[in-house]
Amino acid sequence: MKKELGLLIAAFVVAGCQQSLNGNTTKVSEVKPRISNATQRCLGCHRIVTPGIVAQWEKSRHAHITMAEAMKKGKLARLVSATSVPDRFKNVVVGCAECHTQNPSSHSDTFEHNGFKVHVVVTPNDCALCHPKEVKEYSQSLKVNAYANLMKNPVYHQLAATVVAGKKYSHGKVVLEKVQDKDFKTACLKCHGTVVKVKGFTEKDTPFGKMKFPVLEGWPNHGVGRINPDGSKGSCTPCHTRHTFSIEMARKAETCGECHKGPDVPAYKVYMASKHGAIYKSMEGKWNFEDPSWVVGKDFTAPTCAACHISRIVDENGNIILERTHRIFDRLPYRLFGIYATPHIKYSETYKAKNKAGLPLPYNLDGTPAVSSVISDSEMEKRMNNMKKVCLSCHAQTLVDNHFEELKEIIDYTNRVEVSATELLVDVWKKGIEKGLPQSSNPFDEPIEQRWVESWLFYANSIRYGAAMAGQDYVTFANGKWYLGKTLKTMEMMKNIEK
Amino acid sequence: MKKELGLLIAAFVVAGCQQSLNGNTTKVSEVKPRISNATQRCLGCHRIVTPGIVAQWEKSRHAHITMAEAMKKGKLARLVSATSVPDRFKNVVVGCAECHTQNPSSHSDTFEHNGFKVHVVVTPNDCALCHPKEVKEYSQSLKVNAYANLMKNPVYHQLAATVVAGKKYSHGKVVLEKVQDKDFKTACLKCHGTVVKVKGFTEKDTPFGKMKFPVLEGWPNHGVGRINPDGSKGSCTPCHTRHTFSIEMARKAETCGECHKGPDVPAYKVYMASKHGAIYKSMEGKWNFEDPSWVVGKDFTAPTCAACHISRIVDENGNIILERTHRIFDRLPYRLFGIYATPHIKYSETYKAKNKAGLPLPYNLDGTPAVSSVISDSEMEKRMNNMKKVCLSCHAQTLVDNHFEELKEIIDYTNRVEVSATELLVDVWKKGIEKGLPQSSNPFDEPIEQRWVESWLFYANSIRYGAAMAGQDYVTFANGKWYLGKTLKTMEMMKNIEK
Amino acid sequence: MKKELGLLIAAFVVAGCQQSLNGNTTKVSEVKPRISNATQRCLGCHRIVTPGIVAQWEKSRHAHITMAEAMKKGKLARLVSATSVPDRFKNVVVGCAECHTQNPSSHSDTFEHNGFKVHVVVTPNDCALCHPKEVKEYSQSLKVNAYANLMKNPVYHQLAATVVAGKKYSHGKVVLEKVQDKDFKTACLKCHGTVVKVKGFTEKDTPFGKMKFPVLEGWPNHGVGRINPDGSKGSCTPCHTRHTFSIEMARKAETCGECHKGPDVPAYKVYMASKHGAIYKSMEGKWNFEDPSWVVGKDFTAPTCAACHISRIVDENGNIILERTHRIFDRLPYRLFGIYATPHIKYSETYKAKNKAGLPLPYNLDGTPAVSSVISDSEMEKRMNNMKKVCLSCHAQTLVDNHFEELKEIIDYTNRVEVSATELLVDVWKKGIEKGLPQSSNPFDEPIEQRWVESWLFYANSIRYGAAMAGQDYVTFANGKWYLGKTLKTMEMMKNIEK
Repeated sequence: MKKELGLLIAAFVVAGCQQSLNGNTTKVSEVKPRISNATQRCLGCHRIVTPGIVAQWEKSRHAHITMAEAMKKGKLARLVSATSVPDRFKNVVVGCAECHTQNPSSHSDTFEHNGFKVHVVVTPNDCALCHPKEVKEYSQSLKVNAYANLMKNPVYHQLAATVVAGKKYSHGKVVLEKVQDKDFKTACLKCHGTVVKVKGFTEKDTPFGKMKFPVLEGWPNHGVGRINPDGSKGSCTPCHTRHTFSIEMARKAETCGECHKGPDVPAYKVYMASKHGAIYKSMEGKWNFEDPSWVVGKDFTAPTCAACHISRIVDENGNIILERTHRIFDRLPYRLFGIYATPHIKYSETYKAKNKAGLPLPYNLDGTPAVSSVISDSEMEKRMNNMKKVCLSCHAQTLVDNHFEELKEIIDYTNRVEVSATELLVDVWKKGIEKGLPQSSNPFDEPIEQRWVESWLFYANSIRYGAAMAGQDYVTFANGKWYLGKTLKTMEMMKNIEK
Repeated sequence: MKKELGLLIAAFVVAGCQQSLNGNTTKVSEVKPRISNATQRCLGCHRIVTPGIVAQWEKSRHAHITMAEAMKKGKLARLVSATSVPDRFKNVVVGCAECHTQNPSSHSDTFEHNGFKVHVVVTPNDCALCHPKEVKEYSQSLKVNAYANLMKNPVYHQLAATVVAGKKYSHGKVVLEKVQDKDFKTACLKCHGTVVKVKGFTEKDTPFGKMKFPVLEGWPNHGVGRINPDGSKGSCTPCHTRHTFSIEMARKAETCGECHKGPDVPAYKVYMASKHGAIYKSMEGKWNFEDPSWVVGKDFTAPTCAACHISRIVDENGNIILERTHRIFDRLPYRLFGIYATPHIKYSETYKAKNKAGLPLPYNLDGTPAVSSVISDSEMEKRMNNMKKVCLSCHAQTLVDNHFEELKEIIDYTNRVEVSATELLVDVWKKGIEKGLPQSSNPFDEPIEQRWVESWLFYANSIRYGAAMAGQDYVTFANGKWYLGKTLKTMEMMKNIEK
Repeated sequence: MKKELGLLIAAFVVAGCQQSLNGNTTKVSEVKPRISNATQRCLGCHRIVTPGIVAQWEKSRHAHITMAEAMKKGKLARLVSATSVPDRFKNVVVGCAECHTQNPSSHSDTFEHNGFKVHVVVTPNDCALCHPKEVKEYSQSLKVNAYANLMKNPVYHQLAATVVAGKKYSHGKVVLEKVQDKDFKTACLKCHGTVVKVKGFTEKDTPFGKMKFPVLEGWPNHGVGRINPDGSKGSCTPCHTRHTFSIEMARKAETCGECHKGPDVPAYKVYMASKHGAIYKSMEGKWNFEDPSWVVGKDFTAPTCAACHISRIVDENGNIILERTHRIFDRLPYRLFGIYATPHIKYSETYKAKNKAGLPLPYNLDGTPAVSSVISDSEMEKRMNNMKKVCLSCHAQTLVDNHFEELKEIIDYTNRVEVSATELLVDVWKKGIEKGLPQSSNPFDEPIEQRWVESWLFYANSIRYGAAMAGQDYVTFANGKWYLGKTLKTMEMMKNIEK
């Protein structure tokens, strides 16, 4: 009874909303004839209940171009990679319904909503209708596997669990509580991606009466490797922020900084301490971030994260210097992150790596690469040459070659120091001062072990990132060599005094 | 003699200045007819001696609108809350004299200055002439009591004194020097507010000869809870920066970041590591920060600090989603700051809280809330619903509910870990390894105690802020769970080795 | 043979490039008639091989004004200080060849390049042609000696070497590897400046065939005290970023932040935590950074680093409040950096200082200034008055005087605490717990010594900078008094437990 009344009211209000829509004078009215009927129905109510995202969408490219128009654009101006779409998508702009009602049967989060089969979580599979090339490339990247790369790698999983689990003081000792799903969800998995599961459906009060909605676990989440209710992997939102999906924002360093800012992956901070970052942050107001093809020197005068790793770069005459890629390792010869830096890992599912000790890491504990798990020299050279094309669009060959020679020196340096840090830790374990691998005990949870983790996760990583992006502060004092040296001496001291 | 000569010269120069004023061509000339005679006299000299603030003021709303005009504005456009002001204020713009010569008799810092009774420190009482509603709301906030909330709370005062006092090496030990007023003044009280006192008057050389000025103690200061020379509390300047008093600046996160950036209250850093912060920092150049009513999605596409905590939010049709408030707790169900997080404290004078142990804290040492000092469940719900109105202007109910469920989980998590940290410390005290509460000794000044302080003041706080604002870095590595866990293990180790 | 073929191809391509240049429609075509023939030849190829810097340069002042025009500008609008230049420079804009082919015989990095004698590294000596006053002032600054001030000061050199050298675990101890040139190059010297040396010449493959280039050691580098291949010292690039050389960027804090951001010299972070920084970062989009004379209050409403330390400040009537200086200490009464703060050091070559113990420091180990190495009281007063002129353009005398009184209090505070920290360390050395000066051993490499280094290098410095710029967070919690106090207690604890 109550439910039926609710639906009645809802239907009534929807009708009213649509009338009020006809009378409004905002931007969207200009594009209205090309808004699909379904999306018009959505807008009718959502202009009232979630006015913020409607107003954002109205400013987006999606609201102002149909697929038919988008597919007609020339190579340099084009942002869609599809060459055909079903007829019903051709002559309407990309509105609410076009995304949130696509592929309803594959979405376990689909629910009946005012006569539509709507899903909450839009996925790469949905975006692929218009952007198939980008989705395919991304599906080959490491990022799309970020959930499994953390949770299915027993080494990383143990480290992560040690970090996020509760801690308890018991019998004079600080011990780990049993780790729970929710401990990961609000920490690591915010960036890596959760498994979004439908736990059932529920009714909620809304301004239009009671309505049915899915109960979602692992939501909200926009992690790069999210496991979606349609079975797909990944999320486009972390970089292409909903609901404007602005290319400007995807190109700006702050977007990447959301996940690459911590002491463990300090890319954003390092970049902001570099000359490139200083140019960006002081001059970005005068740059053009909107042109699909990005003219080096004219549209922008220093690379952002996207410029080096993802974007298409062109010159003033429209020659493509380097093509856009969403397979983000295409320009990455090295894997800098880890105890040791190595040639880049061969697998997008990084937990498939295997070193001599059988651990899923691309290096052995003595600092040598796990040869069968890393890319070949020729692949390294290919990727290095891709990256150098970006550099060479402003810098001379000598400068660029020297720069990467310095990176190599720093990789050698940090690997060498980490061999010593690891030897010290092994000594601690052998003497039984702390319990680790030899005792089949957690290698990450005791005081000296924690300093060892910091030595590579914070400091060696910072130094390498600092050298890679010329953010010298991070080579030196800001989580750099100073802290690395201090940490090793502290480990030595603790070895002598711990009881 | 000399003094008279000085005054003579001053008078002469003032006349000259006024003439030069008549001849100038800057913006102010357009509004001149509406500048009061008194303010014109100020400008005559201050255009020369402090040209910077005159030029700033010329760009302000204050310089371009009279109260009569301001009061005529419609609800959405209006920034003054007074419905009447004395006649002499009605038809002039708000210039130097309108603020700096108001209520002269209540200001102990009033001094004779070229025939005017001028005071240096403009206070909320002065601003209340035109903005009475805002000043009243602010007077009910916690911020207005920030001085007393620190200095009259014996627990916080002891912590603060331990931090700011000098340290001395004496007989093999590092001991605290006796804390002095000036130790607080340049540290905590820069944000909390000083007591600004008039210590007398003095003559200083100026470009116009010797002139008399008050000698001010605790000045300069623009702390939120400043105690003013007219006996009033608070300061409008920290957010409404003089002398442009721009609403744009008040709405931008950097303004709040001046005080909410440190490891103890990391709100700005957490925000900047969130998706909202990334949107703000990459897209703010295209936002409209000036419209008194702020249209969500159109004027701004992600909340700033002000949007969630203070601002009026409207939709594109001018419907008010949430009304502006200067009683900043109106949208705050929880008090996240502290050893433990609790329902929000009931008192704006937070030092009036009382827990079971008689301490002025809204929680007991076992982590439970001090029930009589915190708000009721229904008040929590009311405030939570206020906050959710901001979220719901862009997000669906399920997402918003889940988000705050996660915050609750994190509050439970940090409270639980802090119970353990505190038990460990109590154990240290019981064993006499360090001296604290049981020994009626300072609980904040020894090495294990210091790690315990960091465990909640830096790390539990960061984790909570991180969950509240979805700045996941701060839940995980950036002063988050990693550091919390490491700190507890370090405390355990130090317990075993300290002599 | 091969080489000749390469040159032939190069010549051919150059001709082709020039033709394509004639047909293009970019900005540069407007100024083309005034581009020298030599620069046109450069652009012909470099528009293809380094399009980024060509496009940047096209946006620069250099590309749009000839020296003849620049020298005609009135005092306030003028950015060149030369009053005459050789004829060939007068009526052409400042392009590639004007800088990169100047003074070829003094440049050891000069090489034959398509018929030109080109050098890679443009130096202050080259810039001095048009900007002699600025180069002369800069040559008197401390910055120009930044290489020697680090590397020729045995105390600083030992600290730096301890930081940057590799670390090795050997016989149960962490020991320093022998420090190498490349350890400094990628760390300290990125900011201080390297010695750029020509190690020979080599052929490299280019799009135009094989070409000869110098092999440069210590390159890339844009450190402030770089030792250049023409024997000159310093670099203009760190602040005047190539190839736009925008005055806007030089005036923005991010530029200074590239080197002044670390925990050792936290100026940028402190500034960004101040009210001035908050004004800058929230309002800079509305400022005018381009006018050579900078009108306080109108063009900018809060000082940036440049405004206080370098820039010319004028009022709305064109009166100069303070003249521009590239002798950066002109407004600096104190030297805040160091174990102790003192009156500013007298020497630009700071390693020439000598304290009572014969060490090249401007203070004695007991915290008193090394009187013969610091500036006189009258010089301090003169510099303080310069600085205050900036402050007084917005603030009243009382506020400004009180502010600097607070700085003095904080200097006294940190010096006093550092005397204690140093006494504690000396005690540690005397007892042989760690080995330092008394044992003629490295005073920077053991655990307690490392905390002592942090006590002044990170914490006392942060507190002083925090007081100087009113970035209160850095006086209190953010690397401020909290960390200073904790570090001293930790040193005390370690003294008792170290084995």
